[in-house]
Amino acid sequence: MFQRSLSVALLAMLLAVAARAQAADPLPSWNDGAAKARIVAFVEAVTQTGGKDFVAPADRVAVFDNDGTLWSEQPMYSQLAFAIDRARAMVAKNPALASRPSVKAAAAGDMKALAATGEKGLLELVALTHAGNTSEEFAQIVGEWIKSARHPTFKRPYTELTYKPMRELLDYLRANGFKTWIVSGGGIEFLRVMSEELYGVPPEQVVGSSIKTRYEVRNGKPAIVRLPEIDFIDDKAGKPVGIHKFIGRRPIAAFGNSDGDFEMLEWTTTGPGPRLGVIVHHDDAQREFAYDRASHVGKLVRGLDEGPARGWTIVSVKNDWKQVYFGR
Amino acid sequence: MFQRSLSVALLAMLLAVAARAQAADPLPSWNDGAAKARIVAFVEAVTQTGGKDFVAPADRVAVFDNDGTLWSEQPMYSQLAFAIDRARAMVAKNPALASRPSVKAAAAGDMKALAATGEKGLLELVALTHAGNTSEEFAQIVGEWIKSARHPTFKRPYTELTYKPMRELLDYLRANGFKTWIVSGGGIEFLRVMSEELYGVPPEQVVGSSIKTRYEVRNGKPAIVRLPEIDFIDDKAGKPVGIHKFIGRRPIAAFGNSDGDFEMLEWTTTGPGPRLGVIVHHDDAQREFAYDRASHVGKLVRGLDEGPARGWTIVSVKNDWKQVYFGR
Repeated sequence: MFQRSLSVALLAMLLAVAARAQAADPLPSWNDGAAKARIVAFVEAVTQTGGKDFVAPADRVAVFDNDGTLWSEQPMYSQLAFAIDRARAMVAKNPALASRPSVKAAAAGDMKALAATGEKGLLELVALTHAGNTSEEFAQIVGEWIKSARHPTFKRPYTELTYKPMRELLDYLRANGFKTWIVSGGGIEFLRVMSEELYGVPPEQVVGSSIKTRYEVRNGKPAIVRLPEIDFIDDKAGKPVGIHKFIGRRPIAAFGNSDGDFEMLEWTTTGPGPRLGVIVHHDDAQREFAYDRASHVGKLVRGLDEGPARGWTIVSVKNDWKQVYFGR
Repeated sequence: MFQRSLSVALLAMLLAVAARAQAADPLPSWNDGAAKARIVAFVEAVTQTGGKDFVAPADRVAVFDNDGTLWSEQPMYSQLAFAIDRARAMVAKNPALASRPSVKAAAAGDMKALAATGEKGLLELVALTHAGNTSEEFAQIVGEWIKSARHPTFKRPYTELTYKPMRELLDYLRANGFKTWIVSGGGIEFLRVMSEELYGVPPEQVVGSSIKTRYEVRNGKPAIVRLPEIDFIDDKAGKPVGIHKFIGRRPIAAFGNSDGDFEMLEWTTTGPGPRLGVIVHHDDAQREFAYDRASHVGKLVRGLDEGPARGWTIVSVKNDWKQVYFGR
């Protein structure tokens, strides 16, 4: 009897220790390895009061690219999928819209024909599917789309296809006093509709590309009207500009996956004091997609060539991530 | 002896009650009156859990104009004073700069001659005094200026000339879960240097006018370079546009003082649910300045004419504020 009690007590103790060890791992979807170790060491260094690398909470700014860094960007940006779905719905209501080649191609889901319309065609498609309404109307359209849309390869809601290890990382940084920002080449008003639900990032912490807007009072009712004109492209050298404009502080940690994030990582990691630059390398054709140097979407060349010498951490999806997607 | 003890105990009790009453007043620099009562009633309504006017903390967004709302804008915008001081310093180093009439007038402190150079002259002055350097250099220049500059009328540091009642209001709102933003017609990079110290508002919660910037790598060192070109004017109908761009949420409370804030208050107060619109009316020539309809700086006509019917609260500096300035 006494022995049995002792065993039970011992077992309980061991379980408690195991539970504590598990709770202590802030990044359970990451395999133990150099990438995880580097991230944890950085966070511990900047949060250690009195330590030589301590950074005040107000300056703990972390910036994340979205497409390919927080969720999949293959086989196409989700915002392009939105534009195609929207073009299809608009053409169904008003077939005359299909007189424009880009709109016709998009509505037919013909990516080759759409690509052939070039930049002019794409801007035409963006103008039709993203402008001409109020910001409130646009947000409602995007909100309805994200609820019903399915990823073309995995046939699951996009909301289940964010990267679980990156969501853990966002939580981990926030738990350590970081303010987390999304700095995306995608549309700011598109992303703001879902950033809180997907990543716990409020709309005011989303930086992105934008079209121009105008304040108008229509029949006594004020509205922000979306205009068919590009305002800002938050990509490549535009990312540090967007960061400076919206945040007004230089980040100390940056996370990206393509050469569109190169300048953001460069700007972040060349400041004084401790810095962290991380590139997600998509090398897992089994669980996700494998692409880098030759890809049209998410092309990654400079990051692979220059990143390591710059002290950036290259994360291998295949080797560093225990689980890829949040929902599967 | 017993009676004396009783008196002491009674006195202590009364003092404690008085102290508690004082501590309970979140706006001690405001006289009791309709304006203060309206503000307090609004804050209590939106924070009352389960109440019909309850607003979730994430949506408690309050926007404040700066010049004339949080600190004095008379006899001239402090940023104009900065441009003048800066022009003077630059001309002292390089007299050839004075060949431009606007720069010559500014360096001489000749406001009449400066005004005569018109918009072209002002843009020329802005380009010289605000652009051509990196964002880090500009922030350092502004930071040094604000430490040494004195207000032309009161001969005191600008940092002592913020409005005490408004600073209490910022604190009060933040204590009640509001996120406070500055939405200024002034320059965003100018204001961000001092917003935290002056108002407890971090740089990322400052929206303002901007010039264009470019990301550059000079001798291997990246920088944000300030260009002599207007990017965005955050005034009048630009304020709702700036709010939408930077915050991405519609505010529920807005504070301004001039017709440059009209659209911001309109956009804020015409949304659904409880809303607060407040206009500071400068009617105190004794303690500050008295100006409204006829003023070149901070002109206020529509706000006075239409504000009350729109439910906006007009604050009288003379009657509603016990003390005007923070430092005197």
